[in-house]
Amino acid sequence: MSGFTVTQEDMEAIALGGAFLGTGGGGDPYIGKLMAERAMRQSGPVTVIDPADVPDDALCVPVCMMGAPTVMLEKLPNGHEALGALAALEAYLGRKADYLICIEAGGLNSTIPFAVSAATGLPLIDGDGMGRAFPELQMVSFTMHDVSATPMVLADDKGNSSVLNAISNLWTERLARAQTVEMGGAALVALYPMSGAEMKRGILRNTLGLVLEIGRAIQSERRSNRHPGDALIKRCGGYDLCTGRVVDIERKTEGGFARGRAILRGLEDQQGKEFYLSFQNEFLCLEDDDGVPLALTPDLICALDADGGLPVTTESLRFGLAIRLIGLPADPQWRTDAGLDLAGPGYFGYAHAFSPIEDLTNASKT
Amino acid sequence: MSGFTVTQEDMEAIALGGAFLGTGGGGDPYIGKLMAERAMRQSGPVTVIDPADVPDDALCVPVCMMGAPTVMLEKLPNGHEALGALAALEAYLGRKADYLICIEAGGLNSTIPFAVSAATGLPLIDGDGMGRAFPELQMVSFTMHDVSATPMVLADDKGNSSVLNAISNLWTERLARAQTVEMGGAALVALYPMSGAEMKRGILRNTLGLVLEIGRAIQSERRSNRHPGDALIKRCGGYDLCTGRVVDIERKTEGGFARGRAILRGLEDQQGKEFYLSFQNEFLCLEDDDGVPLALTPDLICALDADGGLPVTTESLRFGLAIRLIGLPADPQWRTDAGLDLAGPGYFGYAHAFSPIEDLTNASKT
Repeated sequence: MSGFTVTQEDMEAIALGGAFLGTGGGGDPYIGKLMAERAMRQSGPVTVIDPADVPDDALCVPVCMMGAPTVMLEKLPNGHEALGALAALEAYLGRKADYLICIEAGGLNSTIPFAVSAATGLPLIDGDGMGRAFPELQMVSFTMHDVSATPMVLADDKGNSSVLNAISNLWTERLARAQTVEMGGAALVALYPMSGAEMKRGILRNTLGLVLEIGRAIQSERRSNRHPGDALIKRCGGYDLCTGRVVDIERKTEGGFARGRAILRGLEDQQGKEFYLSFQNEFLCLEDDDGVPLALTPDLICALDADGGLPVTTESLRFGLAIRLIGLPADPQWRTDAGLDLAGPGYFGYAHAFSPIEDLTNASKT
Repeated sequence: MSGFTVTQEDMEAIALGGAFLGTGGGGDPYIGKLMAERAMRQSGPVTVIDPADVPDDALCVPVCMMGAPTVMLEKLPNGHEALGALAALEAYLGRKADYLICIEAGGLNSTIPFAVSAATGLPLIDGDGMGRAFPELQMVSFTMHDVSATPMVLADDKGNSSVLNAISNLWTERLARAQTVEMGGAALVALYPMSGAEMKRGILRNTLGLVLEIGRAIQSERRSNRHPGDALIKRCGGYDLCTGRVVDIERKTEGGFARGRAILRGLEDQQGKEFYLSFQNEFLCLEDDDGVPLALTPDLICALDADGGLPVTTESLRFGLAIRLIGLPADPQWRTDAGLDLAGPGYFGYAHAFSPIEDLTNASKT
């Protein structure tokens, strides 16, 4: 793998793949896709480079959106905030960035880095810090490798900005979250500035290539009038969790997050069964009607419309919608003790101890 | 007036004077007094310099506490946060501060700058931005002279800090307030970095000398077994508003502020009358029992214990306490349209239009 080029025409596939790996959260990648397409029309395609090809002493910087993606959809970024955040971080560090990093391969933040990369001409590294979407900023592989999230810059659409220095990535999350809320619910941020060597130790590799492949698979299966679920399970080593219709949904907004639970009634060969799907921005826990877990964070629970095959977000869940849930094993880094401390079921307040989706699937079949 | 020296022995008087001009809010200056006394024991007295003696191109920086003073009383500053905030601002500006400014002559922030001045050896300028205490950071004379509150540094006791740049001083208040709350309710901050020329245009002059004189008057009157009220009215050109006993008090904590209203029952020649004293951290509005205003922000409503003569804060108001209220005219800057927009009765949601305490007192006597 030695990198590839992403053109304006590829962004639709990137957005679809990002929505799938977004596991219901991270925001619809659509706005980021529009931003990237506009930047590419003006400045040409984006170079995606393999992590191995980045020098150890290069400065690598993730640029992304923080806050409620629903806000971003109503209050479109003007395109300057992300560049402003990057420039402010560069000014603070007294050094220009050499490469951009995608902080999460799922949701809106899977597309925004392409916009920044096109506008700045900086190459984007093929990989990310999550391999999916997660709701909090310390939930990245880089935290497990002791990379500090700060100095971090937050910039809003009005022209306010701040440079944060915190004693831990959890404190960065707390302080940046409060600021993001006050900035109107969403901010563009540049954070986790790191060397090429640090990037190579922590990054989940080649996930942008995977995003593009997933998106293309969804496109091609849909063009052939096939539901893309089977092809994605095959490509990603995934598991068919269930297909069901939403018969009930509870939502509450707590601490800036969209928390809730949907009840699905099984369809096809799962008629008569019920499934409980819990989320905090992302889908995090799926249980059967006896409360037995079928998939648990940090493993991925990806949702597709059971009919059309397009990715489904937690916001778009509604009574009567039929969805197909596909489980994917998380990157092995997430299944370590450090990974589970950061983003396991316990962190989110679910009672189940983590168990890999492979084991849960086998157990549910016996 | 060409400056003076403040020694450890003077800090008790500074704290008393600061509590009086704190108009019930700004926090008890006691903690800042302890910090200043400790710093002076180690590094000697503080030089207070007249504004006129500061060169136009000097860098002048206010350092103060932001947040809930009640938090500060429970979570004592370790003394390094304020120096850390100043150092971080200096690093950001690429220039050392030449002078320190007291942002508010009332409350805790009337004493903290003496601690920073003693520790750094930087002279303190004789004046401040309020001539009293106010609850929000944009409520300073410097805002009326277009001095930006940012770049502003916030530092907490744990080691977290941030550098904020905002498009207005009102936005600085919003963003810094959210961060302060998340930092545990209180932070040490360095803000409004300004030139000597800007300082001279905006500062309310010689208010630190006044704080010291008020404190000494309270001390000497109490030593002579006289209530200090009369002496303070004479020294400050003030008005005797009322003496009454607290018979009811409502408090609510809203948006990080202590809002409320006390009902006072008149004593001595005011028996049979009632008074309504409203506050948001500071005492802001006094009305008689017909709802007629007797004193309105930005004029000062200062409270003394009716018996002992010591300053009384809003937190210490309690059923049965007898207090004497003294009104002082605010600095003329506060009575301009710009001043009233910042801190007049309307800003705080009171229905009365501002009227100077001189006029209200005359009206109430006819």
